[in-house]
Amino acid sequence: MSLIATPQTMQFKQALQLKGGGVLQEYQLTFETYGELNAQKDNAVLICHALNASHHVAGTYEGVSKSEGWWDNMIGPGKPVDTERFFVIGINNPGSCFGSTGPMHTNPASGNIYGADFPVVTVEDWVDAQARLLDALGIEVLAAVMGGSLGGMQALSWSLQYPERVKHAIVIASAPNLNAENIAFNEVARRAIVTDPDFHDGHFYVHNVVPKRGLRIARMLGHITYLSDDVMNTKFGRMLQSGEDFKYSTLDIEFQIESYLRYQGDKFSEYFDANTYLLITRALDYFDPAKAYANDLSAALARAKAKFLLVSFTTDWRFAPSRSREIVQALISNKCDVSYAEIDAPHGHDAFLLDDKRYLNVVRSFFQQIKNNSGEPQ
Amino acid sequence: MSLIATPQTMQFKQALQLKGGGVLQEYQLTFETYGELNAQKDNAVLICHALNASHHVAGTYEGVSKSEGWWDNMIGPGKPVDTERFFVIGINNPGSCFGSTGPMHTNPASGNIYGADFPVVTVEDWVDAQARLLDALGIEVLAAVMGGSLGGMQALSWSLQYPERVKHAIVIASAPNLNAENIAFNEVARRAIVTDPDFHDGHFYVHNVVPKRGLRIARMLGHITYLSDDVMNTKFGRMLQSGEDFKYSTLDIEFQIESYLRYQGDKFSEYFDANTYLLITRALDYFDPAKAYANDLSAALARAKAKFLLVSFTTDWRFAPSRSREIVQALISNKCDVSYAEIDAPHGHDAFLLDDKRYLNVVRSFFQQIKNNSGEPQ
Repeated sequence: MSLIATPQTMQFKQALQLKGGGVLQEYQLTFETYGELNAQKDNAVLICHALNASHHVAGTYEGVSKSEGWWDNMIGPGKPVDTERFFVIGINNPGSCFGSTGPMHTNPASGNIYGADFPVVTVEDWVDAQARLLDALGIEVLAAVMGGSLGGMQALSWSLQYPERVKHAIVIASAPNLNAENIAFNEVARRAIVTDPDFHDGHFYVHNVVPKRGLRIARMLGHITYLSDDVMNTKFGRMLQSGEDFKYSTLDIEFQIESYLRYQGDKFSEYFDANTYLLITRALDYFDPAKAYANDLSAALARAKAKFLLVSFTTDWRFAPSRSREIVQALISNKCDVSYAEIDAPHGHDAFLLDDKRYLNVVRSFFQQIKNNSGEPQ
Repeated sequence: MSLIATPQTMQFKQALQLKGGGVLQEYQLTFETYGELNAQKDNAVLICHALNASHHVAGTYEGVSKSEGWWDNMIGPGKPVDTERFFVIGINNPGSCFGSTGPMHTNPASGNIYGADFPVVTVEDWVDAQARLLDALGIEVLAAVMGGSLGGMQALSWSLQYPERVKHAIVIASAPNLNAENIAFNEVARRAIVTDPDFHDGHFYVHNVVPKRGLRIARMLGHITYLSDDVMNTKFGRMLQSGEDFKYSTLDIEFQIESYLRYQGDKFSEYFDANTYLLITRALDYFDPAKAYANDLSAALARAKAKFLLVSFTTDWRFAPSRSREIVQALISNKCDVSYAEIDAPHGHDAFLLDDKRYLNVVRSFFQQIKNNSGEPQ
């Protein structure tokens, strides 16, 4: 059985104060829901997205082929997050370019497109915005909040910002903050975008151009960090794009990996917004719940009351298992209820989006153990 | 005691046929020498450079402060490669931007600057060019050839192209070929350069511009791959550029690692040639001695007659120890005389240029065991 997804949009007139000092006087949030909210309103699961994703988490758009949501293997009827039991919400964050208010929208204060004037947003701001959507939907407590990578940071932050509103938090392929190498890769991507002559200080929209060169480089670079060395060697190795002999050219494509990266970069530059890329990579850089606790992660997580599931993947060198283990240790030191699975998967950071039976079964088991008050199977 | 280095240039009128099909009808090579060639001419050591280096391997330029050669900690009087015993040659490769004929020079066929018309050069071509310099210097047999990274590939290739002319080969922090991830990083750097509007299809010289944006990105990216995750966290971590609070900006520098990378990128873009960057990264991509032997590295190395020293560094994720071990295994399978040291160093790929006593002592010991016919201490 396949889900049909329908995006919805909700307007918010109450100003959202942002951690960085800015404010969104009014904004809209785009979201999708799957399954039914039960009478007790206690079966809601919120899914938080990562850098390149959106509210379109599961199902397909009616009549649109290949329109599966980005976590469609995880969420749906009979799937690990079972929409026959749970009411699942996919939400797009402010600052994104997929529907919620972002840099491509009009700044009501000026009447112009926000562009680079869109205020800096943080993981904490996104969680605040998500909480308001739940308020509007009449959902006081989440059965679970869940995300991978940057989405996992949001799930973790939920458990700290709204500890009473989160029963379970599922944090996948994530980290308690970015390390220097993570920040470094983000910075190279940002510099590629910002120094593209078509960036025009972030106000390229009025020039009718898009800094595609920068976006391409950012995405090519991103892809390298999403894949493991192993899977790159298995999938591409030194295979040539055509024939068995080199063409001997500095400009032409020789290797299949080059073709793959160029294709991914070109595709991305056609649909992703450059200012959104800057904002989201900065939100990644800034996330650091331990910062206000003298870098003591254990102290930072002391507020958490949720039951946790952490999952990491052995070949993920972007957010290595050691980073997940830091969170696990800090939760254990607070006597939190935490399960942790380290999946021996070859696919690197990307593994959190892929089909891996052990991984999907870990999530399935965790959700099967989530009790609700509706008398359904435990 | 400090060496004073003096660059020399030699002209070659005999055409150099290149592996990629091109030809250099005439060319010059820039080089430096340290120490004295003995009467038997059997104490010569050739040093091959990597991506960003030159013939200026050791010593300083008279009256120029901070002009130490790039391997000055390794080569000099009383140093691991002792110039009181050995005649050491540093050579700049064709295609470079530091003196030997390269893209910034005039193409004698057209009278214009080569630019993108400079022919593709390979590791094998560089070795051929280096061999001609030795011919001109009257050196038939090298006591040793030595290099790190791409320089190590040249040392390995010497042992295959001219097995009778190499007594010892020292291959440091190198690999038998690039893997998919290595090629991927090269490709992102190349795309950044080539898509810079100031690149002008590689003929930017006549426009009086330099594709600095692309060069900056290439260098920032390179630096990430030269450093280990560990050393980045130790050196930079999440330390802020100023103060203890975030500025909350997508454009300003927040973290010290960002400042470091921008500085390195800016500096590089002031002196390095964009076409050279393309040529040298391609030479890296193309190096693959096993390719002509159905990817059987052991078969490819069967010709080698030198005694080998291989060195790798545990935290080098660009050319990981496993890549050096592939070479070691292939040499052993050919019953070659090979020593191998895996140095537990925190500095990543950069370690081959840094002071590490164990590393320097391994090289020192190896050179102390090199016999020569002059009756000096063995």
